[in-house]
Amino acid sequence: MTDLVEEVRMKIRAGEWSNPTTGVAPGYTQANLVILPKEYAYDFLLFCVRNPKACPLLEVTDLGSSVPKQTAPEADLRTDLPKYRIYRDGELVEEVTDITAYWQEDFVSLLIGCSFTFEKPLLENGIPIRYIEEGRNVSMYKTNIACEPAGIFKGPMVVSMRPMKTQDAIRAVQITSRFPSVHGAPIHIGDPAQLGIKDIKKPDFGDAVTLYDGEVPVFWGCGVTPQAAIMASKPELVITHAPGHMFITDLKEEDHAII
Amino acid sequence: MTDLVEEVRMKIRAGEWSNPTTGVAPGYTQANLVILPKEYAYDFLLFCVRNPKACPLLEVTDLGSSVPKQTAPEADLRTDLPKYRIYRDGELVEEVTDITAYWQEDFVSLLIGCSFTFEKPLLENGIPIRYIEEGRNVSMYKTNIACEPAGIFKGPMVVSMRPMKTQDAIRAVQITSRFPSVHGAPIHIGDPAQLGIKDIKKPDFGDAVTLYDGEVPVFWGCGVTPQAAIMASKPELVITHAPGHMFITDLKEEDHAII
Repeated sequence: MTDLVEEVRMKIRAGEWSNPTTGVAPGYTQANLVILPKEYAYDFLLFCVRNPKACPLLEVTDLGSSVPKQTAPEADLRTDLPKYRIYRDGELVEEVTDITAYWQEDFVSLLIGCSFTFEKPLLENGIPIRYIEEGRNVSMYKTNIACEPAGIFKGPMVVSMRPMKTQDAIRAVQITSRFPSVHGAPIHIGDPAQLGIKDIKKPDFGDAVTLYDGEVPVFWGCGVTPQAAIMASKPELVITHAPGHMFITDLKEEDHAII
Repeated sequence: MTDLVEEVRMKIRAGEWSNPTTGVAPGYTQANLVILPKEYAYDFLLFCVRNPKACPLLEVTDLGSSVPKQTAPEADLRTDLPKYRIYRDGELVEEVTDITAYWQEDFVSLLIGCSFTFEKPLLENGIPIRYIEEGRNVSMYKTNIACEPAGIFKGPMVVSMRPMKTQDAIRAVQITSRFPSVHGAPIHIGDPAQLGIKDIKKPDFGDAVTLYDGEVPVFWGCGVTPQAAIMASKPELVITHAPGHMFITDLKEEDHAII
């Protein structure tokens, strides 16, 4: 862990940062979080394994442990994300900044790669990230692509979208293909209608951003997909990160590069 | 499924092929098999997720189903591998060519990528595969690398080894990096002692092959790793493929290429 990650994590832990984490600790791998009771863990783990574009697994904690010992052994998943969502029977009932009071000994925590991780290499290749420029959260949409179901879990794939010039989209395919564990290559370029997205200006999660003339929307699998599955499958209790409010691990983005 | 895969599969199903599957149906993805009762499935699935270099998951079947519907929907895992191993309490008790009589309704089957899959691209790049030339099974070794444990499962990483010229080893890194779901890049090049391998002429699984002057041994993670974990962790009953006697899926090797 570097001073930068430690500083950011301590700020989040102290409740001094409850905003989205894009651009925070650049170069470090960010992760989506799903916490659920052991009785749902096999089905949900299988759901992730069967849907690796949307739910690439970075780590699964031991039963009852809130410490992600492979990706951030000094962190605590109960306090070290800026914002959490509590789902009961598939309904979002609350957003909180600390889940210590909700913790159960039968919890298993899954960390799923986040596309924020490959934004530094995109920026270094001269590809601007619109929502960062505009100071917003990334745009996320439910699609008409059905995830491969697993046990009780089923639901649509959720995608994140970044508008860019077509030549940048080609370069972005090359750059992000190196990082399959944080969603890898895009799943679609160009036509929101083909994904069943009716209005690109109305994302299901996060904020809308400007799409300029000559730009195409580029879509990646998104770790908010589990939240759509939770809404569809209605397990009794699940805790997740709030979209855009990720867990920052100790790992560099390059630790996950395949080539 | 092509005529080639169907022909090979029918031959195996009829008991007419009980040899290793290397070079059989070239270009198609081959898989290691682990079948275990549901009570062990969560721990073993987690073991695979935590050890993706040795145990990259291709598919996990639904409870009680012997049909791998994602990778070979017309196949049957009870009959379509040339040879199986039955382990009881961590001991190899039997090798059979059909497991229909052993099938249980509480079985879950896991298919793990096999490095035979990337041998066609190696050959196409002019890299000879010694054990194929010599008509033997690939050499496999237990190493001193401990897998990340998960629940009851722990044990050493098993590797496969192919000798080649050093310039071919560099090309082989490039070629196999494209295929993380069939073990991806090598885990070691050059010095068996660093992996705790005392005698390269005495593999723990498969056959020994000739290493010529000027060649280096190149080691990849191997899907026999679960069998070492089963021996170490002693679950009541597990069925696996016999090393080298793989399941042939309907998928082309290119279906798994990251770039």
